[in-house]
Amino acid sequence: MNMKNYRMTIQYDGTKYNGWQRQGNTANTIQGKLESILEKMTGHKVEIHGSGRTDKGVHAKGQVASFKINTQKSDGEIKDYLNCYLPDDIAVIDLTEADERFHARLNVKRKTYIYRIHNSNVPDVFSHRFMHSVADFIDVEPMKIASKLFLGEHDFAGFSSVKNFKKSTVRTVYSIGVERFGDDVVIAVTGNGFLYNTVRIMAGTLLEIGLGKREAESIAKVFETKNRQMAGETLLGKGLTLLSVEY
Amino acid sequence: MNMKNYRMTIQYDGTKYNGWQRQGNTANTIQGKLESILEKMTGHKVEIHGSGRTDKGVHAKGQVASFKINTQKSDGEIKDYLNCYLPDDIAVIDLTEADERFHARLNVKRKTYIYRIHNSNVPDVFSHRFMHSVADFIDVEPMKIASKLFLGEHDFAGFSSVKNFKKSTVRTVYSIGVERFGDDVVIAVTGNGFLYNTVRIMAGTLLEIGLGKREAESIAKVFETKNRQMAGETLLGKGLTLLSVEY
Repeated sequence: MNMKNYRMTIQYDGTKYNGWQRQGNTANTIQGKLESILEKMTGHKVEIHGSGRTDKGVHAKGQVASFKINTQKSDGEIKDYLNCYLPDDIAVIDLTEADERFHARLNVKRKTYIYRIHNSNVPDVFSHRFMHSVADFIDVEPMKIASKLFLGEHDFAGFSSVKNFKKSTVRTVYSIGVERFGDDVVIAVTGNGFLYNTVRIMAGTLLEIGLGKREAESIAKVFETKNRQMAGETLLGKGLTLLSVEY
Repeated sequence: MNMKNYRMTIQYDGTKYNGWQRQGNTANTIQGKLESILEKMTGHKVEIHGSGRTDKGVHAKGQVASFKINTQKSDGEIKDYLNCYLPDDIAVIDLTEADERFHARLNVKRKTYIYRIHNSNVPDVFSHRFMHSVADFIDVEPMKIASKLFLGEHDFAGFSSVKNFKKSTVRTVYSIGVERFGDDVVIAVTGNGFLYNTVRIMAGTLLEIGLGKREAESIAKVFETKNRQMAGETLLGKGLTLLSVEY
């Protein structure tokens, strides 16, 4: 078979899904939906490699994935075929043939996530699916200052839900910002990679600082001690969106 | 009982509801949800008057309603009580005590609706609940020109799904606009009132003009003949949003 390698960019509203990664017989994952359509199209087994997993309820504006298939269809035809059979909450916004060595997970250079918090006791009825909701006033100024403690290379073991690591837990954060847009507080972070639940725990830690329940210095203590118990809570998946992946 | 009159502004994502108006025992309406919470709060029967009905699946950014209740609570406390018990897709964004003569339906001066069409074969995964979707290219230029034929006072009987009218079918359109924002085409219309399904039929008629399937002059013919069959199709409720109501 003449297998060609493809790269695609995917958007999804993760509300209804059990995350990105196919799990056994569970069809209700983003990866599973995409693979089953490509298998129907090609008539052969297809394995899609995402840039990384996103958890249950997490969204993506720019998830990237790669896969190899045997097809005579053009890039545009494959993209149209996918969008025709995908549900309304998953879309392939870009698809092109890639170098045969391109691998969406192994070649990642940088990933950017945003965590959105709606800071009001009045729900945002049009965007509540994509935001965590907090009624008490959040002061973003101490969050902005504290967020800079995440910059650079650190051991993020204390900011992960995983207990026993087999691989390195050192990661680099290139940029991080906290901004208020009206009633919404948005945390954006770019790094070379993130451990399991790390962005949600970073957001939870910063939120506690914004609510006056925690000192900025505690972030340095979590890095030192690698103690998960000293970091903030893991915020809900619904507030998290994988914004982009760079290669 | 010392009944006070209140005015409130409500937002909702209408996707899951059978429209605004309470229907017999059907609990799944916006009006029904609001009334049952106010009845729980006050202990007496409450009737809410909306500015008008919105159909199944139609959304609102600024629906206005009035109601009379007997309560010691402040305006802010009533608003908080409602938002506390309302689901995430309905929110009261403003609530104040009003003059006892204020009636949200009878006192309407102007209403503004928007109809949104996503013009792409790639779904907008974050906003598809609020937009009708059309893959073929829509040319907004002829729509802009044709839309002006709706301006002023006309008999809209041909632009309504109702067959036998008991009251006047003459309405005035004060302004109408058609704009493209990237892949989205938005029709905005302000008038002193609209008949049943009128905005959706106006949007359907303009869409056919934008797709090159209909001439602008046909709008004048529908006004002349009052013949529903000569107008365009009734577009889906999901694309319609009641933007604001003026008094």
